[in-house]
Amino acid sequence: MKIVIDGFGGDNAPDEILKGAALAVNGLGIDVAVTGEVDVLKARMAALKIPENGIELVPAEGVITTEDNPMSVAKQKSGTSMGVAFKMLADGKADAFISAGSTAAIVVGGRTYAKRIEGVKKAALVPLMPCSGGKRFCVLDGGANINCTPEMLRLFAILGSCFMKTTMGVANPRVGLLNNGTEDEKGRELEHETKALLEKTPINFVGYVEAREVPLGAVDVLITDGFTGNVFLKACEGMGVLMKDALKSMFFANIITKLGALCVKSKLTEFTKQMDYKEIGGSPLLGTAKPVFKAHGSSDAKAFFGAFRQAKMFVENNAIEEMTKAVSALEALEGGAENG
Amino acid sequence: MKIVIDGFGGDNAPDEILKGAALAVNGLGIDVAVTGEVDVLKARMAALKIPENGIELVPAEGVITTEDNPMSVAKQKSGTSMGVAFKMLADGKADAFISAGSTAAIVVGGRTYAKRIEGVKKAALVPLMPCSGGKRFCVLDGGANINCTPEMLRLFAILGSCFMKTTMGVANPRVGLLNNGTEDEKGRELEHETKALLEKTPINFVGYVEAREVPLGAVDVLITDGFTGNVFLKACEGMGVLMKDALKSMFFANIITKLGALCVKSKLTEFTKQMDYKEIGGSPLLGTAKPVFKAHGSSDAKAFFGAFRQAKMFVENNAIEEMTKAVSALEALEGGAENG
Repeated sequence: MKIVIDGFGGDNAPDEILKGAALAVNGLGIDVAVTGEVDVLKARMAALKIPENGIELVPAEGVITTEDNPMSVAKQKSGTSMGVAFKMLADGKADAFISAGSTAAIVVGGRTYAKRIEGVKKAALVPLMPCSGGKRFCVLDGGANINCTPEMLRLFAILGSCFMKTTMGVANPRVGLLNNGTEDEKGRELEHETKALLEKTPINFVGYVEAREVPLGAVDVLITDGFTGNVFLKACEGMGVLMKDALKSMFFANIITKLGALCVKSKLTEFTKQMDYKEIGGSPLLGTAKPVFKAHGSSDAKAFFGAFRQAKMFVENNAIEEMTKAVSALEALEGGAENG
Repeated sequence: MKIVIDGFGGDNAPDEILKGAALAVNGLGIDVAVTGEVDVLKARMAALKIPENGIELVPAEGVITTEDNPMSVAKQKSGTSMGVAFKMLADGKADAFISAGSTAAIVVGGRTYAKRIEGVKKAALVPLMPCSGGKRFCVLDGGANINCTPEMLRLFAILGSCFMKTTMGVANPRVGLLNNGTEDEKGRELEHETKALLEKTPINFVGYVEAREVPLGAVDVLITDGFTGNVFLKACEGMGVLMKDALKSMFFANIITKLGALCVKSKLTEFTKQMDYKEIGGSPLLGTAKPVFKAHGSSDAKAFFGAFRQAKMFVENNAIEEMTKAVSALEALEGGAENG
């Protein structure tokens, strides 16, 4: 298996990418292709004492920044580290794609180079959030589609469910529909109609779920429209920052509290690790016909290793095939229902 | 000023209510009326060594529970501690009402006994949330109205703004409209239309606000529809529980971490206090023509004292009058605009 990574995407390129690639070659037994200016990459590998085996350097020029028009990844900027990596994926020279670069460009590139699974109208980046017990759940739609139809949400439920099963090791992912209460009468028309659809879909649908229960681990796949998804995710993020700031000022208040910080240091690190995106590494772009992962912009070697591991699982467990089957089974069901 | 409190509402009635009333009489210089079975109240006051001065005991029979039909507060259960307290408010025998009893009954009772400010279609319970720096912000709609119109949201903005000014001591409350981004093009039709209205409203409208910034203290009044408001509030709550659980297991892990807990104890208490609803005490029912406050069901004496203090500020600073003026000014503006 060969996974290609955009060698110049993200804040810590290329050093942390190269280090992450070396970890992946050793730890996961995969081959890695790194795109970018080969002279620079070679020099950095030598300086970092990274062995060449298992790492292919693929020439590319320049980088796409967040200031660039994301559409340029498929046009005038197709020769950049991201563009070349996408081209390798498109041409079958790599089995999966990873980049920590411009999110918008990754989404555009994924849609252009990786195409879509038949029956999927729009691929979407799916955030993985930490929850109770060190687990993760994914949110669809996490913000891309402000207005969603029940049919879109059902498709998201299938994609999310397949992803958690194939890539995150969740045997029977619990799919919940975000609502303002769990009683049948709660919710808007969108929730009522979507619930009716999800009940007929071959997934482990656990019904309505309240926002309070989600960080506590109530579901593996959270289904909601992109507006609500954004509010949910950002509220969680803000609370996380608030708590982190409060903890910091608590521990740094005086010499005694600093002693206290020392006493809980290892546990605190464990907790921070659990709450940390880096441990997982990437967000998948779901709905594409080839594997595309977005790594955090601030990813370090360990985070990139996490993204490689995720991509490997995704490929190894035939996530795309699973999704394609599930989506077409749905279409058959629909067709049957319409005819019946 | 006399404030009436439902003597048998909430988990800690009547002891904590009586203790809170005594604190309020002493600390705030107000008179308090406590409704309920007078024999019981008298016996508890004697047992708790609470002096009688400033506290009027008003006879009532039984209590409305969450199992009761909330409508009963105005009908067959109007003789209960909550019903009698509402009656005193309605009859002008008390200047404000507080109860820690059934939320639904308080909302129904408030609408029935306290009537509405002219121009307000529906009074709503307004949660006060903790944010960065020990401050609070309020959310309208916090969940009562799943579908809101821009006009409803504008009214909420006015009520929330008046409340924060008169009762919470915020000189020029920042009113923000919850959105999935701050750029003009972000949001749904509801956000676009509401923004246009709020820009023409005489409040300190600071524009769109992202959910992430709210717990960090970006606004004093958060405006959103009830569905999104519920998701926002519950997500914050869930994250709070997650963090609290994590902290607990961190500090109780072993003997060393327990020592750590000892070192930060006072700071931890300070933080918990800051994040605690009890310090504030109550949620106002805004839009009613008389002051109605809901105290937390689990309120203790200190929390009840907080609710009394809030109610006193509300009355003293003529919150209802301010709101009435602001709403009618709006109607004049509307009329003017329509005629002009």
